Amino acid sequence: MSGNSFGKLFTLTTFGESHGPALGAIIDGCPPGLEISEDDLQIDLDRRKPGTSRHATQRREDDRVRILSGVFEGKTTGTAIGLMIENTDQRSKDYSNIAQQYRPAHADYTYNQKYGFRDYRGGGRSSARETAMRVAAGAVAKKFLKERLGIEVRGYMSQLGPIKVEKVDWDLVNTNPFFCPDADKVPELERYMDALRKEGESVGAKVTVVASHVPPGLGEPIFDRLDAELAHALMSINAVKGIEIGAGFDSVEQKGTQHRDEITPEGFLSNNAGGILGGVSSGQDIVAHIALKPTSSLHLPGKSINVSGEPVEVVTKGRHDPCVGIRATPIAEAMMAITLMDHYLRHRAQCGDVVMPTPVVPAQA
Amino acid sequence: MSGNSFGKLFTLTTFGESHGPALGAIIDGCPPGLEISEDDLQIDLDRRKPGTSRHATQRREDDRVRILSGVFEGKTTGTAIGLMIENTDQRSKDYSNIAQQYRPAHADYTYNQKYGFRDYRGGGRSSARETAMRVAAGAVAKKFLKERLGIEVRGYMSQLGPIKVEKVDWDLVNTNPFFCPDADKVPELERYMDALRKEGESVGAKVTVVASHVPPGLGEPIFDRLDAELAHALMSINAVKGIEIGAGFDSVEQKGTQHRDEITPEGFLSNNAGGILGGVSSGQDIVAHIALKPTSSLHLPGKSINVSGEPVEVVTKGRHDPCVGIRATPIAEAMMAITLMDHYLRHRAQCGDVVMPTPVVPAQA
Amino acid sequence: MSGNSFGKLFTLTTFGESHGPALGAIIDGCPPGLEISEDDLQIDLDRRKPGTSRHATQRREDDRVRILSGVFEGKTTGTAIGLMIENTDQRSKDYSNIAQQYRPAHADYTYNQKYGFRDYRGGGRSSARETAMRVAAGAVAKKFLKERLGIEVRGYMSQLGPIKVEKVDWDLVNTNPFFCPDADKVPELERYMDALRKEGESVGAKVTVVASHVPPGLGEPIFDRLDAELAHALMSINAVKGIEIGAGFDSVEQKGTQHRDEITPEGFLSNNAGGILGGVSSGQDIVAHIALKPTSSLHLPGKSINVSGEPVEVVTKGRHDPCVGIRATPIAEAMMAITLMDHYLRHRAQCGDVVMPTPVVPAQA
Amino acid sequence: MSGNSFGKLFTLTTFGESHGPALGAIIDGCPPGLEISEDDLQIDLDRRKPGTSRHATQRREDDRVRILSGVFEGKTTGTAIGLMIENTDQRSKDYSNIAQQYRPAHADYTYNQKYGFRDYRGGGRSSARETAMRVAAGAVAKKFLKERLGIEVRGYMSQLGPIKVEKVDWDLVNTNPFFCPDADKVPELERYMDALRKEGESVGAKVTVVASHVPPGLGEPIFDRLDAELAHALMSINAVKGIEIGAGFDSVEQKGTQHRDEITPEGFLSNNAGGILGGVSSGQDIVAHIALKPTSSLHLPGKSINVSGEPVEVVTKGRHDPCVGIRATPIAEAMMAITLMDHYLRHRAQCGDVVMPTPVVPAQA
Repeated sequence: MSGNSFGKLFTLTTFGESHGPALGAIIDGCPPGLEISEDDLQIDLDRRKPGTSRHATQRREDDRVRILSGVFEGKTTGTAIGLMIENTDQRSKDYSNIAQQYRPAHADYTYNQKYGFRDYRGGGRSSARETAMRVAAGAVAKKFLKERLGIEVRGYMSQLGPIKVEKVDWDLVNTNPFFCPDADKVPELERYMDALRKEGESVGAKVTVVASHVPPGLGEPIFDRLDAELAHALMSINAVKGIEIGAGFDSVEQKGTQHRDEITPEGFLSNNAGGILGGVSSGQDIVAHIALKPTSSLHLPGKSINVSGEPVEVVTKGRHDPCVGIRATPIAEAMMAITLMDHYLRHRAQCGDVVMPTPVVPAQA
Repeated sequence: MSGNSFGKLFTLTTFGESHGPALGAIIDGCPPGLEISEDDLQIDLDRRKPGTSRHATQRREDDRVRILSGVFEGKTTGTAIGLMIENTDQRSKDYSNIAQQYRPAHADYTYNQKYGFRDYRGGGRSSARETAMRVAAGAVAKKFLKERLGIEVRGYMSQLGPIKVEKVDWDLVNTNPFFCPDADKVPELERYMDALRKEGESVGAKVTVVASHVPPGLGEPIFDRLDAELAHALMSINAVKGIEIGAGFDSVEQKGTQHRDEITPEGFLSNNAGGILGGVSSGQDIVAHIALKPTSSLHLPGKSINVSGEPVEVVTKGRHDPCVGIRATPIAEAMMAITLMDHYLRHRAQCGDVVMPTPVVPAQA
Repeated sequence: MSGNSFGKLFTLTTFGESHGPALGAIIDGCPPGLEISEDDLQIDLDRRKPGTSRHATQRREDDRVRILSGVFEGKTTGTAIGLMIENTDQRSKDYSNIAQQYRPAHADYTYNQKYGFRDYRGGGRSSARETAMRVAAGAVAKKFLKERLGIEVRGYMSQLGPIKVEKVDWDLVNTNPFFCPDADKVPELERYMDALRKEGESVGAKVTVVASHVPPGLGEPIFDRLDAELAHALMSINAVKGIEIGAGFDSVEQKGTQHRDEITPEGFLSNNAGGILGGVSSGQDIVAHIALKPTSSLHLPGKSINVSGEPVEVVTKGRHDPCVGIRATPIAEAMMAITLMDHYLRHRAQCGDVVMPTPVVPAQA
Repeated sequence: MSGNSFGKLFTLTTFGESHGPALGAIIDGCPPGLEISEDDLQIDLDRRKPGTSRHATQRREDDRVRILSGVFEGKTTGTAIGLMIENTDQRSKDYSNIAQQYRPAHADYTYNQKYGFRDYRGGGRSSARETAMRVAAGAVAKKFLKERLGIEVRGYMSQLGPIKVEKVDWDLVNTNPFFCPDADKVPELERYMDALRKEGESVGAKVTVVASHVPPGLGEPIFDRLDAELAHALMSINAVKGIEIGAGFDSVEQKGTQHRDEITPEGFLSNNAGGILGGVSSGQDIVAHIALKPTSSLHLPGKSINVSGEPVEVVTKGRHDPCVGIRATPIAEAMMAITLMDHYLRHRAQCGDVVMPTPVVPAQA
């Protein structure tokens, strides 16, 4: 209720601060019998972890995850799955100077107002370091979705500052530090980021996540529509300021005949809906785009106040991502996977005995 | 859990289909002692109700709400508030022809796949008629927020198809059928909508909702950030395809120094954050934009299939809104008010004894 | 969250006061395709309703239930089911004298302390009249459990004051106003109640509820064990002061060899567990006993205070049940049915693809 | 939703198996600013831990708890509190013989039926070892309740087999291994338990828990009455088969004039209600009794079946408590404290601005 849990039937609860001894999580509701190992979780954790290229924060964390319960002889037992990652590269003294200041566009001021008090080391609980546990849990959800339902959840960076991706080759996404699916853009991204780092600046980005082979029927009208819960899931990621499903904001200028995805026996003729109609999956690809703001931890000085309300000039030292959007792809995938997993279980609860009527419309004509 | 409830501490649960005998709702968790009457709820219901201009559906519903419990001698008692609106202008036979067809871009196909079965009369539960109950509950939340906390939740239509609002005069919003805050645009909107109706077309729209005088501290990190729950709330409204908080998708191309809202003792210097930092309200205006797709109930024929999978040409008869975005303003306000109300109660639960540290940064310099 | 809902996946939310215009409820999560009519609900409502014998309150209520949504062409659609019963025989003036007094053993004082204010007419929300909606929802659950799973939920009054039932003939339960399964005790109960009424007294009772043919596997360890949720469900009924599962308080003096229910290929040899092991159903009958206190609405004067803290002598006028335990049987059945229904859906969500291993132990050798 | 969480606003989620590497928990919703240390938690953990007398299991566990997050500079921050205890004295091979058998009165058979599969080492998740985390979280709740509200939650063993406690001297409870408040009974208990252990038998027990100085107003009508949630909390403890609030099952034979707790300006004249009226605390002591069954892990052979359905004779080797009721006192206290804490926060959410009317009735005349 105080915000540390996500998902109603496949429920992830997390703990941990940027500079505390460890991050941890409990997954409640994972079905029994799923083969899962620490290695399965490590794959996505390694995709997210810091320090893997010069374009991300230089904090070095192995992010080795341990499964502490809920798995027996290599399979989930249906009981709570406990996960833990120890923090190893905290440098709390980097932050002592900001204990008395509110960094602009950070959670410093709002956490202080909320709790009357805050752990200022590296942002404490508000640090994106917390997302490691989402990625670990997302890996469990992804594996279940893939093995049991054939669902594939994948993402890519679709824009970084002014640079827009023009082609999507899924095979390329994990071959560069940007999760960029367009080979032609990678050198441009390298140059842009190198220049940005020299400036001491940061920049925003856009990430696209797609779930394929989702069966029709997932999503709970009225308030827990699949798109509403996806928006919740994705907007809960640090730095996200916008969400689109399918055509998104382009819908504003579309006319009805243009937007509606006509149906033929061979499949839908378009996918403006982004795979969701009436809040329920249609069987088409589920497509979401998210906007991520530029990091606010900058080496360039900015105006702010201290805890006494006096004006100060803030410079954020420490190690930071110049574009948090870069590492957001595995996190967005994780949140989409967890949302789908949760909705699959919710659907199974209420409609577990519904025999789907024919025809199932193919995803795309 | 099956989607008919919203809010964790101020909880709205609704029932009702477009062509059933009645719509109803239960509000659980409203604090005791709030003066409330049916008239208080009627104000917003009348703003939303159909048939009030030629630009909306011609279905005639009085939408008279009855309070059936939870209010005694004019005040809320703290117990469940029961609400009901009787449907009076159903014309179910308009829909008999679509019982065997899936209208493109409607919930027909997905509901059938989910439940194995559907109430096809006027979209049944998937009809936007359901939103009347959100507006009724939103009026309760708005009144509480205004009277107890001074919070004001207001909205306007910011774009309709290609027509963008350029000025915001709050006093104008309720003086025209479009919730348009820009007097210069109203004649243009009239002409555009008249032409659209003749074509048999529909169009998308954008609505902006703003909450002013929100105290800092509302929002529950990590997963129930205020922006995440707002995104959930707003995306749960029929036809919404996109959400932005503050700068939204513009953040993608912004640099850090541009996006970060600097702070001075006199207030924040900008509001790219849209009033939320780290998922917690900052005291600035909370600003959200939503994209609404064009209605899919068109008199222009479209390709689809019937329940046997055979190709059909669908023409939607009946009475429909050519732009659902027009009537969405009070609904969006309601969902924002309910979300804030819920978060206020959640904050009070956990941090009810926190004495806010000074200084409270003024909303805007 | 404020207490007006029960069940996590099959969720009942209710509203209504004793002397308000109506009682109502929303059932969220009922699976689609269940044939259900108002008549199906009326059967149990008629078993619970007041005024059917001289041993219950003489308030006359038809308790006619209307289904307002969620059922189409005789079947549940999977969407929210709205229910309503209009109150017809309120006599609020009977209660004006107690507006300023706290009746001993009633909720008067505690509601006033909680909410700062209360609807004093007939106990307002704290009246057992609220249980009508539980019975209506319980009838839906019972029908599903019976038709889809073969589960039967039945109850009887097992003790009234000093009179203990000695034989259980299920066929007799609904043939007398006491829900007594032992024909020999009925005349004794009649005499006892007649004398009690003359005295102006009330008395406690014990009710037993049994669910038969429950599949093994229902119940969610650790905190939502089936017995824990049953205890919650049953203790939420007005006037209940004790709960036993299986051997209950007799377990205190039992030794391990005596209590453990040994298993043979032909079935369990006893049922001290009451059908639940480790919080999960075993396939044996689920057996619960509840203790109900004597009504506190007495014509015999009692000491109390008024809202100014001055001593007063309270005499409760109005129409009351001299033994609330009498009408509690259908309510207890309803709460057990709702709990089982909820747990069935929860089990189906998480373990919907578990193929039960053989052997399934027969219920009883 | 799958049972690993308790509490809606003060939420405890746990993981861990008897023979896994560690037990852990996350507390979500603890208010900020509470001074708390590992030592505060250790006090109750040491009261519960095994191996401290010859009357409990001889498994040796230090049960040293670590706080991994949510506490900064000695105070809770309002964010998630992560807790962990490493298991150190697992002897899994003791259990290899029961992998193929269902021990009577254990969760073996039901877990297998539920999940299709189980961790058979020491009962896995169904082991009472899980309760360590409840005790740790309970210590946090107890500290908050004591410091902020003056509430004291205490328990004692009130009966063991045939031996009933006759006097309650709170100062004695923690001076003997039985949590017995009656000095005269301790030698008798010693003798009884020594004999029982020689027999290879086990026995049931009764535990009483009392909360004093609880303010009136806690509890959420209708379904989340304080007594209903307490019943849920206490029945979720392993081996509990019965719950009584106040007079409990004695209410069955009481008459109204005898049961009702009359009120005078000096206080209530009795406490049959056990401190709860209409599901809401009255300010009197909250009194609950629980019945615990005898352990089923016996050295005396019992009839059962194996996973192939064949008859077997089961003898449970390993180290077990001959009376689980003995160590249940701190667990019951913890569950009552967590329940009260949760209800305090829930009350504060909805009624945080209610100014209590005078007079507050004193607890007892």
